[in-house]
Amino acid sequence: MAHRTAPEPPALVPAAAPEGAPAPGAVFDWLDETAELRARAGLTRALRSRPADDPVIDLAGNDYLGLTRHPAVTRAAADAALRWGGGATGSRLVTGTTALHTELEGELAEFCGVEAALVFSSGYTANLAALTALTDPDTLIVSDAYNHASLIDGCRLARGEVHRAPHDDPDAVRAALAGRTHRRALVVTDSVFSVDGNAARLLELSAAVRAHGAALLVDDAHGLGVLGPGGSGALAAAGLAGEPDTVATVTLSKSLGAQGGAVLGPHRVIRHLVETARTFIFDTGLAPAAAGAALGALRLLRAEPHRAERAREVARSLADRLTAAGLRASTPDAAVVSVRAPGPEAAVAWAADCRRAGLAVGCFRPPSVPDGVSRLRLTARGDLTDAQIADAVRTIAALAPAAAHTA
Amino acid sequence: MAHRTAPEPPALVPAAAPEGAPAPGAVFDWLDETAELRARAGLTRALRSRPADDPVIDLAGNDYLGLTRHPAVTRAAADAALRWGGGATGSRLVTGTTALHTELEGELAEFCGVEAALVFSSGYTANLAALTALTDPDTLIVSDAYNHASLIDGCRLARGEVHRAPHDDPDAVRAALAGRTHRRALVVTDSVFSVDGNAARLLELSAAVRAHGAALLVDDAHGLGVLGPGGSGALAAAGLAGEPDTVATVTLSKSLGAQGGAVLGPHRVIRHLVETARTFIFDTGLAPAAAGAALGALRLLRAEPHRAERAREVARSLADRLTAAGLRASTPDAAVVSVRAPGPEAAVAWAADCRRAGLAVGCFRPPSVPDGVSRLRLTARGDLTDAQIADAVRTIAALAPAAAHTA
Ligand SMILES: Cc1ncc(COP(=O)(O)O)c(C=O)c1O
Ligand SMILES: Cc1ncc(COP(=O)(O)O)c(C=O)c1O
Repeated sequence: MAHRTAPEPPALVPAAAPEGAPAPGAVFDWLDETAELRARAGLTRALRSRPADDPVIDLAGNDYLGLTRHPAVTRAAADAALRWGGGATGSRLVTGTTALHTELEGELAEFCGVEAALVFSSGYTANLAALTALTDPDTLIVSDAYNHASLIDGCRLARGEVHRAPHDDPDAVRAALAGRTHRRALVVTDSVFSVDGNAARLLELSAAVRAHGAALLVDDAHGLGVLGPGGSGALAAAGLAGEPDTVATVTLSKSLGAQGGAVLGPHRVIRHLVETARTFIFDTGLAPAAAGAALGALRLLRAEPHRAERAREVARSLADRLTAAGLRASTPDAAVVSVRAPGPEAAVAWAADCRRAGLAVGCFRPPSVPDGVSRLRLTARGDLTDAQIADAVRTIAALAPAAAHTA
Repeated sequence: MAHRTAPEPPALVPAAAPEGAPAPGAVFDWLDETAELRARAGLTRALRSRPADDPVIDLAGNDYLGLTRHPAVTRAAADAALRWGGGATGSRLVTGTTALHTELEGELAEFCGVEAALVFSSGYTANLAALTALTDPDTLIVSDAYNHASLIDGCRLARGEVHRAPHDDPDAVRAALAGRTHRRALVVTDSVFSVDGNAARLLELSAAVRAHGAALLVDDAHGLGVLGPGGSGALAAAGLAGEPDTVATVTLSKSLGAQGGAVLGPHRVIRHLVETARTFIFDTGLAPAAAGAALGALRLLRAEPHRAERAREVARSLADRLTAAGLRASTPDAAVVSVRAPGPEAAVAWAADCRRAGLAVGCFRPPSVPDGVSRLRLTARGDLTDAQIADAVRTIAALAPAAAHTA
């Protein structure tokens, strides 16, 4: 706490700064100074707004199944808005739960093979909820060093003690669990890491939590719709869906082409979230249009389960062709492929050149990459044709900086 | 950090618990124990799902202007989904910025009289962004004790030191600023507090930050659309819109009938958020349908500015009639009115009785009320008729527990 002095008399004229005082806006001068530092390091970011009829081939978004603009999905979104309104009007606990939310939760739980699901306004807030509500001050949270920002923020908000485990290191997780002095423990990991697209070793992690009376929280943002039977997710792929000590979070904003997130797990976990999770209780419910779009996409996926396998196939094909072209591509476990770049500025220039050639690719630079290595990030949309894949790889390879081949 | 021992050998069969070990699900037994404690304290919460054609009169949601189901708003949402897709497909910095987002940001900034606006997936994540990005470890954050949960979580995520100031106490804020040892300071407040609907003294707070070279962050979730000329918000109402040391956050989920949030402020602040705010960079952009609905509502409000005044009028009328009926209603500064209840169980029963009588009212109990006092919470929708208001008050008064008159 700052130490406090006696209060000053109130001053009711706000606009004038005290004589000799710096200009009021000076309080934000430091923002410009940090912007200058970022600019010098080649780390400036700017928004680019896209048109509705963008002719660019998109390998940058997370629309893994190409469903965002599928007519059944956009129609479901539009119908939900017309029927239910533009927003949910309040917290899920007050007025924000419509029959549509309940329907989505039921079908999502069934599809993923878990007892229950709870829908949030984003994957981000779902992760904050799971981490804060499933831990208490006597909990050790063991978190993979490469976990998504929302899981890291969730760890920071949680009351437990956080142990950052080296990336993809089940031995380190076991050691942390074995050495803990806390009553409870929660192991937290992405199922598919968002930068390189590599998968966590869920079977090993599950065995570790089971051996140590801990729980497992898996962020399946990049697994739902891509991994497991018909896209039912990474837990189903590992045979772990429905385990009583395992909770998953998913997002509705990637494979399901909408917005929102969900927590999936045992009934008791979901009830606990409803009653205690701050980002559930104190947040407006997901807009009906987003719930409708996600439900539309889910039904499409159930009717056409090959869509999941196709996204994985496109990813493998992308990676193989990039490697054959002499680039350093990651080995995709799901639908994300990364290609190493020699540095942040080279990565930005490479991505910009691709865009000028009609191909949108992601560009990950510090501080968004945990290991400091800049990359292009490509997402394998299941609706790409083989010809489009070959074209994309040709473009990327032709525009690669020389040093990319050994980056 | 937990102390660590040598790693154990990997165990690859996950389902079996070690002999004599507790059942795997036992890790979550404590959730049932806390549920039992809440049940005994009368604090159980459960979801109720509403139908699309709910005949109930809604005084519980935050749809202050009654725009959520306005045909212009639902049509705008539907058209946006059909034209742009069910989701934004990626982070605003990658593929998630459409021309629709940019349009919404421009019109929102203009309407509120600020240089720039940045749209987020929720008001919750907008608040997390503003608090974490506008503070550093050398910042004192002075936060009103009754601030919304999302501001409190933002304080917890921020790197600065947090000073919790007594509710609505500009003297205490001045004292904290005067006594600070930190290079920077940020004063944070709701414009309208969500439980009782009372307004913060923004002019005094602004004078205080100006006198001390600090900045002011105002969460205008309950002010936008209700306060200020034509509903342009609490800062405009106080003549503080566009001040160089002042930042506002708003939500698109209340008066604007959609979902999402925004930060409003000087260009340099918005640029800084684009480049550094984790809930902006690592979150999928707002779904097009929500952006469309908010833009539709904003345009409606600009064309029909009397809607804001009407919401305030309904609130005053509600409060006056409740007081005349002998109940302890708050004095509304915006569109929220609360009525004191004798305790959490009485509040729940009262609200349930109202619902059976066709009237939905909010029910706030610990821990959602900072002072521990249970209340009914009524929101004054601008589209209510005088007859509906009179009916609602008759119902609430007739069903009031005896002790409510002196609660
Ligand atoms: C691994 C992971 N978890 C969570 C999120 C957050 O989900 P959302 O964008 O739906 O909030 C994302 C991406 O945005 C992600 O990549
Ligand atoms: C004061 C205040 N700030 C922020 C929020 C969060 O906004 P949203 O629900 O749009 O996330 C709310 C309500 O939900 C609120 O009442």
